[in-house]
Amino acid sequence: MTIRIAIVGLGKIARDQHLPAIEKDARFELAAVASRSAGVDGVPHFTDLSELLASDVQFDAVALCTPPQVRHAIARQAIDAGKHVMLEKPPGATLSEVEDLKAAAQAKGVTLQTTWHSRYATAVAPAQTWLSGKTIKSVQINWKEDVRVWHPGQTWIWQAGGLGVFDPGINALSIATVVLPAFFLEKATLHVPENCQSPVEAQLTFRTVTGAPVQADFDFLQTGEQSWDIIIDTDGGELKLSHGGSRLWVDGQLTHEGPDEEYPGLYDAFARLIAAGGSDVDVSPLRHVADAFLLGERVTAPAFIE
Amino acid sequence: MTIRIAIVGLGKIARDQHLPAIEKDARFELAAVASRSAGVDGVPHFTDLSELLASDVQFDAVALCTPPQVRHAIARQAIDAGKHVMLEKPPGATLSEVEDLKAAAQAKGVTLQTTWHSRYATAVAPAQTWLSGKTIKSVQINWKEDVRVWHPGQTWIWQAGGLGVFDPGINALSIATVVLPAFFLEKATLHVPENCQSPVEAQLTFRTVTGAPVQADFDFLQTGEQSWDIIIDTDGGELKLSHGGSRLWVDGQLTHEGPDEEYPGLYDAFARLIAAGGSDVDVSPLRHVADAFLLGERVTAPAFIE
Repeated sequence: MTIRIAIVGLGKIARDQHLPAIEKDARFELAAVASRSAGVDGVPHFTDLSELLASDVQFDAVALCTPPQVRHAIARQAIDAGKHVMLEKPPGATLSEVEDLKAAAQAKGVTLQTTWHSRYATAVAPAQTWLSGKTIKSVQINWKEDVRVWHPGQTWIWQAGGLGVFDPGINALSIATVVLPAFFLEKATLHVPENCQSPVEAQLTFRTVTGAPVQADFDFLQTGEQSWDIIIDTDGGELKLSHGGSRLWVDGQLTHEGPDEEYPGLYDAFARLIAAGGSDVDVSPLRHVADAFLLGERVTAPAFIE
Repeated sequence: MTIRIAIVGLGKIARDQHLPAIEKDARFELAAVASRSAGVDGVPHFTDLSELLASDVQFDAVALCTPPQVRHAIARQAIDAGKHVMLEKPPGATLSEVEDLKAAAQAKGVTLQTTWHSRYATAVAPAQTWLSGKTIKSVQINWKEDVRVWHPGQTWIWQAGGLGVFDPGINALSIATVVLPAFFLEKATLHVPENCQSPVEAQLTFRTVTGAPVQADFDFLQTGEQSWDIIIDTDGGELKLSHGGSRLWVDGQLTHEGPDEEYPGLYDAFARLIAAGGSDVDVSPLRHVADAFLLGERVTAPAFIE
């Protein structure tokens, strides 16, 4: 069975990741693109999902790659039309709307997938295996990148609901929520540029249910070397996930390294969910972000000018 | 069976509401008070829960009335000691910690109750009955009170995690989440005094799953007449819940009115949950607040000086 999939929102993430992953996976066929601005050569193009649904193009599933602020209405429309839905991260602008999509997908009998691409990074599964049975003593997360390099022109990131530095930081949290025992926020500081609504820098202090401190430092203005690292100190040595989860180090020795296969991993999982008639709706990384906005102390940072 | 209950945190809400409700309900007996400052005459008094647990006072349950910022650690300690736990609202400083308490209570086989006292206001149940089968066209929530009158000296309200005007506003949301179909936030404006971390005023625009707009206006600086009203326009007339849910009006006619029986209602529900071996963990009002902090646009308001 071929899954005829439509991409809604043809921005950077769709072009860089979704199109190649769909191209590469024989179970998927790109049926259409809905995007206000751009299209893909040789593929039916529509302005938006409504126009696509009103056309005679047949399709089974939608990959939703628009900014989170407008994701719910489109996702709900797709679910109500009986389409399987893959939600780019974060799965919504609010937690409550994801609850609604979950209920709607269940009622309609379609597959809903919240995607956390970093969980499919090469070294995440080996890290889970290595940590099994060990006691975690402390965790340090350093997620520091240059927004000007990685998100050029993406002004929605700075608007209310755009998440700011939590847009990359949520990737760290998506890995942490699958490799660590449950943890929760005790204290947070959010640095918000005086001309923005979303933080450019954040320090988060969590604790695991087993009592281990988890410190996360997110920075969106890192120049020079970039870090996407999680360092876990255990009773059996130190584990380090670096490069966003694509390299695994044990006591300073590189043990796993691999090419970027995150999005192929996501599409593989999506195809399996559709075949099994299941859904995977996990909001825990976004819930941690909401907790940080709810509990965090805000301090004013200098204006951000791209 | 008598439920021997300890109050942890003997502040205003404990004195005004919990003590009288426990006194009034024959199923409960006040076994101890844990509070840094005050005690209750004739009742064993301890500085904190640890001291109480280390004593020879026997008890079955805890009513947790401390500010939300320190609620989780105490609740977890009580659950781990095999005690049933009633959580004052909001149930935690973060959503993730309530998930943890839920899992812990389930594992330990004790009752956990998230309390939303306004749901037990006199007119809420009749409102649910009246609304049944009607189509909601629009909803207006006005929750406007004078913080200086109702929360004198409660500086924690203004700190990070203290919720500000959402401390009363969450009561409106706790009623709305049981009388309305599911709804979710589309837009919010939070007015934060320049010397505070939490909003003093908020406008929230929600929409129900059935498409009806829900507008909520929260104000913490209302002088003169106070409003705790929810007005619901339907195809069968207009319903108004006023006075925090204690009066019901249909098309301008008062149909239900009653004395404040919210806390007795909560304790009745707690006793029933304990007898049935169940739990009631509903985070939806707090999730809406977290959504507002996540999605809301912040504007600076004048300094708040009590």
